[in-house]
Amino acid sequence: MSRIAYVNGKYLPQRDAMVNVEDRGYQFADGIYEVIYLHDGRMIDVDLHLDRLERSLRELRLPAPMGRAALVYVLAETARRNRVSNGIVYIQITRGVSRRDHAFPADPVSPAFIVTARRTPPYPRDPAAWAASAITQPDQRWARCDIKTVGLTANVLAKQAAREKGAAEAFLIRDGMVTEGASTTVWIVDAEGRLRTRHLDHSVLPGCTRRALVAELRAEGIAFEERGVSEEELRSAREAFITSATSFVRPIIRLDGAPVGDGTVGAVTRRLFEIFARHVTGGLRNAA
Amino acid sequence: MSRIAYVNGKYLPQRDAMVNVEDRGYQFADGIYEVIYLHDGRMIDVDLHLDRLERSLRELRLPAPMGRAALVYVLAETARRNRVSNGIVYIQITRGVSRRDHAFPADPVSPAFIVTARRTPPYPRDPAAWAASAITQPDQRWARCDIKTVGLTANVLAKQAAREKGAAEAFLIRDGMVTEGASTTVWIVDAEGRLRTRHLDHSVLPGCTRRALVAELRAEGIAFEERGVSEEELRSAREAFITSATSFVRPIIRLDGAPVGDGTVGAVTRRLFEIFARHVTGGLRNAA
Repeated sequence: MSRIAYVNGKYLPQRDAMVNVEDRGYQFADGIYEVIYLHDGRMIDVDLHLDRLERSLRELRLPAPMGRAALVYVLAETARRNRVSNGIVYIQITRGVSRRDHAFPADPVSPAFIVTARRTPPYPRDPAAWAASAITQPDQRWARCDIKTVGLTANVLAKQAAREKGAAEAFLIRDGMVTEGASTTVWIVDAEGRLRTRHLDHSVLPGCTRRALVAELRAEGIAFEERGVSEEELRSAREAFITSATSFVRPIIRLDGAPVGDGTVGAVTRRLFEIFARHVTGGLRNAA
Repeated sequence: MSRIAYVNGKYLPQRDAMVNVEDRGYQFADGIYEVIYLHDGRMIDVDLHLDRLERSLRELRLPAPMGRAALVYVLAETARRNRVSNGIVYIQITRGVSRRDHAFPADPVSPAFIVTARRTPPYPRDPAAWAASAITQPDQRWARCDIKTVGLTANVLAKQAAREKGAAEAFLIRDGMVTEGASTTVWIVDAEGRLRTRHLDHSVLPGCTRRALVAELRAEGIAFEERGVSEEELRSAREAFITSATSFVRPIIRLDGAPVGDGTVGAVTRRLFEIFARHVTGGLRNAA
């Protein structure tokens, strides 16, 4: 099936979904994005994603291409035209097309706005089958990883390093501490049995799935800590898992070739996998 | 005059110079670029730029779209079709179009290759008229600034901050040291009268104009040091200037609103301005 993309006001076949070479997204990575998971036609945690999208726009001083209701309509329509009810929608907004110059265009231009959608495999049912390996990599990214920009060169290189080791994710290490995965949030159950993920600051993206899971943890009365995890703590963790819009809760059972804990999916990860599956697939609770 | 761009094998009017939204340059900043200055139809320091282009490709494990001779032909032809004999050619190469996934495409795709050209104002004759202001900004960029990628979000923000202060450049400060300008190399004549620029490592782009100027300095027997400059040394400098393919040797006479030295173009900067003008406009010496 040929795919359809929304590009600056038009729904176009993927092969005709084009932007100008002077789009600032192409020449300067001057843009931001979001990825939203769809389950049975519902956009999961859509308000969290759109809150973050609007925050990213503000941080880069990018204008919004349209209001939130209109934007949601475009997302839904792009999904519909692609017959995607289980899959992802991808949103990218850049500063638009202007003669190349690092600074913002002197005469304001319209932001560029594209949306694509595609089907993904069914939601994972078995945490053991969904479990994966990770590697560690130096965190080479910039100082504002809290903004979800398309400036992903470092993420690409880290993810490719993981791929070449047969791993699903690269855990990024900065100054001896785990920041996050190349496209996910990292969680551990530490050697003392405490569920932990890194606090939010400019070094990590504020994960929407992280935020949704935190709301679930609070509702369930499950204790957790938002606190930096050292590389040493990571290596001595009993359990590890990643979260993201498309990883959901994904167990990490091997790290740099060594087993995490006993190398199987631990009890805490299994429970959170199930809680999050309920969050996505039904029996929903609204994220805070 | 409508401009012509080279895009993946075709010469197209600028408005039709389009790339697919799934070009990895657009979604991942997975690409590199160069800017070459043309004077009287000659591409200045072209071999230095193409050496660096090839190095950037290697560092990102990007294939070259064509051999060097063919590439030079495309640059010259793009300039010719735009009737640019004094101006710039811009080259961008990305990993090509592939369904969105951080890691490199599993099935190799052709790299995307675009070239644009445009006229620029005449080469500056008077260093005092060419002098400009700069500001300082935190260096927020990634850990591999030696690779000339299109991941320029941090550079854009720094340059915009400069623009809003009426300055031509932002000097980037990392851990108390000057790395470079947002798109230029920084040089000073320090309080002891020593001509200095930062040594090369992963924190700075190896400037082609820097390299060409170093060759001129050696040929002229002018002493200089390649050594880190602290923010304090920057502020107590007698002279400062920037170099780049389009800045040439550009005096910086104000920094963060305060005069550099006595606030006029110093003797060393003036001499290097003249040496570099000769390098570009005639009486050439080949850069090492």
